[in-house]
Amino acid sequence: MIYSDYAATSPMSEIALDVYQEVARDYFGNASSLHDAGGKAKDILERSRSMIAKLLYTEARQIVFTSGGTESNLLAVDTLLRASRLKGRKHVITTEVEHNSLYYFMKDLAHQSNIEVTFLPVDQNGQIHLSDLEKAIQTNTCLVSIQHVNGETGVIQPIKDIGEFLQDRDIPFHSDMVQSFGKIKVADLIPLVDSMTISSHKIFGPKGVGAIYFSKKLSLTSHPVSTNHEHGLRPGTVNVPGIAAFAAAASETLADLAVNQVHLQNIRNLFIRKVKSAGIPLQPIITENQCPSIIGCVSDFVQGDYVMLEYNRHGIAISTGSACSIGATELPKSIQPFITNLEEGKRFVRFSFSHHTTEKDIQDIIETSDTIFKRIMEERQGYDKKVNG
Amino acid sequence: MIYSDYAATSPMSEIALDVYQEVARDYFGNASSLHDAGGKAKDILERSRSMIAKLLYTEARQIVFTSGGTESNLLAVDTLLRASRLKGRKHVITTEVEHNSLYYFMKDLAHQSNIEVTFLPVDQNGQIHLSDLEKAIQTNTCLVSIQHVNGETGVIQPIKDIGEFLQDRDIPFHSDMVQSFGKIKVADLIPLVDSMTISSHKIFGPKGVGAIYFSKKLSLTSHPVSTNHEHGLRPGTVNVPGIAAFAAAASETLADLAVNQVHLQNIRNLFIRKVKSAGIPLQPIITENQCPSIIGCVSDFVQGDYVMLEYNRHGIAISTGSACSIGATELPKSIQPFITNLEEGKRFVRFSFSHHTTEKDIQDIIETSDTIFKRIMEERQGYDKKVNG
Ligand SMILES: Cc1ncc(COP(=O)(O)O)c(C=O)c1O
Ligand SMILES: Cc1ncc(COP(=O)(O)O)c(C=O)c1O
Repeated sequence: MIYSDYAATSPMSEIALDVYQEVARDYFGNASSLHDAGGKAKDILERSRSMIAKLLYTEARQIVFTSGGTESNLLAVDTLLRASRLKGRKHVITTEVEHNSLYYFMKDLAHQSNIEVTFLPVDQNGQIHLSDLEKAIQTNTCLVSIQHVNGETGVIQPIKDIGEFLQDRDIPFHSDMVQSFGKIKVADLIPLVDSMTISSHKIFGPKGVGAIYFSKKLSLTSHPVSTNHEHGLRPGTVNVPGIAAFAAAASETLADLAVNQVHLQNIRNLFIRKVKSAGIPLQPIITENQCPSIIGCVSDFVQGDYVMLEYNRHGIAISTGSACSIGATELPKSIQPFITNLEEGKRFVRFSFSHHTTEKDIQDIIETSDTIFKRIMEERQGYDKKVNG
Repeated sequence: MIYSDYAATSPMSEIALDVYQEVARDYFGNASSLHDAGGKAKDILERSRSMIAKLLYTEARQIVFTSGGTESNLLAVDTLLRASRLKGRKHVITTEVEHNSLYYFMKDLAHQSNIEVTFLPVDQNGQIHLSDLEKAIQTNTCLVSIQHVNGETGVIQPIKDIGEFLQDRDIPFHSDMVQSFGKIKVADLIPLVDSMTISSHKIFGPKGVGAIYFSKKLSLTSHPVSTNHEHGLRPGTVNVPGIAAFAAAASETLADLAVNQVHLQNIRNLFIRKVKSAGIPLQPIITENQCPSIIGCVSDFVQGDYVMLEYNRHGIAISTGSACSIGATELPKSIQPFITNLEEGKRFVRFSFSHHTTEKDIQDIIETSDTIFKRIMEERQGYDKKVNG
């Protein structure tokens, strides 16, 4: 199988698997227990926290571990909201292109509570405009939440500009960096956000583990249902083996970030070049600022789910969009700038790569694409002949 | 090390570790992805769900997987609350002895919202009275949440009686069975509750995985921030390797439940007998209905944390109570019926056993206890002499 759905999830690296196994076996204690078995687990936990902190050029106590990117997003935003709600502010700004985990939370917030939510639109490049953000800000704006990299299109939001803009205005800023962490550099953005989210299973760590970075500026108040774990923010026995494996995977993945980023860029360029030169009827979504790991495409005439299944039949795993939005009937807002109508939107597929993707993989994908679309075209022609002639 | 803190957490069984490894390696896809890698993961997920369901004599679709016992408790209670809140009812009944994860949630509910919460007291046996429950019920009672087995004392609440009583009155009933599942039979209680919680890491599965059983009676409405995973109740990429390992551990542990329960009872009886016959200055908390895996003790004259550290120095891991309440300054309400004053409460320690605990372990614990307390007594006498003579 050529796995080209790394934006949905990644396999655990061998190192991460080894660490998981070792910690689960030899350091199984409850990190909250005061005996040695607990103390050793706690040591591993704190070492893992330091490892993640180091990768983000911050300090260990700014990191909170969670059960994944979704929980991280929800807990981060909830924490920032609770902090600023105390000050009576009741307006939130986010975008139309957030990951479902935040998008639905924000929709719910707008419905269920007395908090007003503004959803910023994106332009023809898939990016929000600073001027729109500026216009949206009210005196009682208590939170801005804007993702770094979009999971469908790879579009990068101008987090640096947004962060600087909001810092001047003292408005808390959360950013979902699940798709960028481990693919492109995020560390230089950290000083500009109040919280950010990462997820382990997107970077060769275990599923069910994530983290939040919280800025030092925040004086975090404990989560109401917890007294102790994770700075009082998250109740529940801490998944130390999972966290240790996450930290190992993150360190491994980020060790070669610069090299991997160049590799990913080459892979992406190769893919785009080959799609064109081989005349594959796929139109890659290319815009100004994109993460090289993700390349959305619109097929010329076949539905995305059919295309995806054809690739699957040929041993290539791709996606029709966020793996998390299956069952959804609406098109993600993130691809709307790049299509002219709903029909086109339904022809969307996503290839997503990692540093494990090789030039040979791309070559094979192109050859398979050729086979798939030739057959589809032949069938269509046969069909057209039958119908028209 | 003689690990006698199984109520805090347990190591993963070799089978659970193997399953984790295999699934993480060979079935790493996102269970929501529609290609084969996703489909295979989804198969494992559903097979695991069936395995857990079978152990509870229920159907797969009644099981929802979560990130642990804490999240299960919160999600179950939140789900039941949201269902009955729609009907306008606003009174909740729980006990003073719930696990922190529920206790603090309930405290918060009582403070933050317009829901009234009644905390039932426990009697001299640590149990709640059905008559107190009856008195507490109001026309707008929308939820009763009562644990099965207490984590500090092992006291078993009369879930069968409570369940039958509430079923007649059509009041939703949640029960936290984290400490009983895998230790004593819970399956016959399932038809009497509307939801119940179990946690993987207490029964030799991985940390960070749990489940909720929901009764068929409930028509579950989706969680607002999710559209798809886990019956729409829980957002976030599903931790399939963890869930598969949980199911494997649960099946393994429950396969010999009857035998293990007898073994645990013998171990517990042996411990109690030996403590008495060896004159160890520990008073085991013995009452009418207790789970044999847990035995709380009050030491005659030494603080619990000191006792715990002494055992630790001698390679025996025990606890001073719920590993989750470290840092707490109040004594758990669960031990208050068994002590006469706060000083006594501070001398509480907990031994907790599993089917891996052997008679030899108990023998060693007793011998070590003898050594520890003899030394403490000698020191005390030396000290008394110095001071008084
Ligand atoms: C941008 C983004 N945010 C958040 C998440 C959720 O992360 P997790 O799957 O760990 O809950 C995802 C994963 O699909 C994502 O792509
Ligand atoms: C009775 C009880 N409920 C819930 C929990 C929480 O489970 P978890 O540690 O998986 O969050 C525990 C564990 O300490 C417990 O003993």
